[in-house]
Amino acid sequence: MKITTLAGGIGAARFLTGVKAVLPDAEITVIGNTGDDITLHGLRICPDLDTVMYTLGGGVSPERGWGRHGETFTVAEELAAYGAGPTWFGLGDRDLATHLVRTRMLAAGYPLTDVTAALCDRWKPGVCLLPMSDERVETHVVVMTDAGRRAVHFQEWWLRMRAATPAIEIVSIGAEAARPAPGVLDALTNTDVVLLPPSNPVVSIGSILAVPGIRAALAQTPAPVVGVSPIIGGAPVRGMADACLTAIGVATSAGAVGTHYGARHHTAQRGTTADSATDSATADSTTVRDPVTQDGILDGWLVDTADTGTEVPGVTVRARPLLMTDVAATAEIVRAALELAGV
Amino acid sequence: MKITTLAGGIGAARFLTGVKAVLPDAEITVIGNTGDDITLHGLRICPDLDTVMYTLGGGVSPERGWGRHGETFTVAEELAAYGAGPTWFGLGDRDLATHLVRTRMLAAGYPLTDVTAALCDRWKPGVCLLPMSDERVETHVVVMTDAGRRAVHFQEWWLRMRAATPAIEIVSIGAEAARPAPGVLDALTNTDVVLLPPSNPVVSIGSILAVPGIRAALAQTPAPVVGVSPIIGGAPVRGMADACLTAIGVATSAGAVGTHYGARHHTAQRGTTADSATDSATADSTTVRDPVTQDGILDGWLVDTADTGTEVPGVTVRARPLLMTDVAATAEIVRAALELAGV
Repeated sequence: MKITTLAGGIGAARFLTGVKAVLPDAEITVIGNTGDDITLHGLRICPDLDTVMYTLGGGVSPERGWGRHGETFTVAEELAAYGAGPTWFGLGDRDLATHLVRTRMLAAGYPLTDVTAALCDRWKPGVCLLPMSDERVETHVVVMTDAGRRAVHFQEWWLRMRAATPAIEIVSIGAEAARPAPGVLDALTNTDVVLLPPSNPVVSIGSILAVPGIRAALAQTPAPVVGVSPIIGGAPVRGMADACLTAIGVATSAGAVGTHYGARHHTAQRGTTADSATDSATADSTTVRDPVTQDGILDGWLVDTADTGTEVPGVTVRARPLLMTDVAATAEIVRAALELAGV
Repeated sequence: MKITTLAGGIGAARFLTGVKAVLPDAEITVIGNTGDDITLHGLRICPDLDTVMYTLGGGVSPERGWGRHGETFTVAEELAAYGAGPTWFGLGDRDLATHLVRTRMLAAGYPLTDVTAALCDRWKPGVCLLPMSDERVETHVVVMTDAGRRAVHFQEWWLRMRAATPAIEIVSIGAEAARPAPGVLDALTNTDVVLLPPSNPVVSIGSILAVPGIRAALAQTPAPVVGVSPIIGGAPVRGMADACLTAIGVATSAGAVGTHYGARHHTAQRGTTADSATDSATADSTTVRDPVTQDGILDGWLVDTADTGTEVPGVTVRARPLLMTDVAATAEIVRAALELAGV
């Protein structure tokens, strides 16, 4: 069985531990967000790819959910002693080795896809981890400062400003000219099911969807597409997704996010597996959706029991407990998503 | 008072602690060897500049004499876990921050002189530390391997091979096209005395002399030039200078090294300070010297009491205890060198 998922960072990584637990023999492809990537101290850092890789490879810090377990911060302290900023990014010593290897390989001309595969050679995450694009796409956030409007890198807004400064606009720099990385479109098309984990709908999933071709592949794949809501009871489970949703004019609710993703039109040729999903979905081509979504991407939408009664036009909605408290609970969520997908 | 010294790594750094102890108010300029510099893991590393900077700035490991005190090697262990070589270079976490700052500044277009000054802003070594050149000059060593003649970077020969594989030739790659860094020639010309610390005559001092213009400046400076022998009783005090000397056909003796440096011809215009040095030297323009040294660079040569009786044609030789066992002993050596220089 083939499963393809999109992925942000911590939420996606945890969700994927559930996918692996439910279907240990499945061929899992993960399309990771690289919009959070940043170059600091000359090092190319891919936080979301690394979080997935470390989590599935057994190297993550269980306390933080990102970065390495047993991490130390000697280099960061020394950089601060030199006055070499920024200091708001948690750059661990163990983690830094990953960035050194990545930066060196990128400088040698290897695309990020190959670099990621090389890093995964060590971690063996048990999935095929692909960056959404080999080209540079960076999420920048427009904020109002004392000095007027200013665009800052997503990481600066997220970590230094703690997303407390309202985002006027969130932009994927470079997205328009970017192409999906090799294997991405194929993984979305030639698969038995596509799952959207409970990642940030704007700066994680939205960033991936901003790469031309990926949204269309999701809209047109013969496989069923099911998403898991990152919003429970009107609040993000973790992180500050509400600040991102507000910036794009979407309410912080499971229903609004599902509607923002939108229903698939089902105009494409569908395979057998997909048909069963279509059966369970209340397809409605007259759905009114967020005008941003030219092509809806959902067949099914899993919301928490706190959001029972949520409706998303054209999308089959089911309510299940969505807190990923441990692998067993996460596995239950994955089972529910697969059941909703009809696979 | 102005003092200019050339400098390799550990020996020079220790010697300079003596210079600072004897003349705390002197304006000291250090022209550092960059022939040992190497790029590893994408990081530009300048071992000799850093050894001088850390030692004089109070950050050096007293046990090793190089690198940082309280050093850890987390990043290096992680790089090894990725299979990212080489593993024979001791890349500490604290030290690595220095290389990150340097690499980033070099990539931004700053010359090594400015980068070194920026790093010294933190360490405040109490000297003006200049790289011998802003251009890349790298010492490579030709060795015979099972696969035939092969040139390896000096660091590989020194650290991985422990200089046990005989050097057929030692080459300063890039030296011919290199220019002295800004301030270097001026520091050699407009100074009261030039001291050569007991650094490796081939890969430290020899590397600096390989930069066109530096040897001539030493030969012609109105200031007296006095060197301190790194060879005591026919053996290097530390390191494997004998392996380097053998490669260039110079015997491992205080006399042979002094003769290799050669006597200054004193044809240049000399100032008052220099004249007093000339008085104390047995100038001899018919001196037979190593043919490699087109221009001799020594007025005086300080050897250990174990080498009493050493003669270097055209150069005033004095014997003093030369083991730099502590700062007091080192200060005595510096006093003897200054006395020999007549300043």
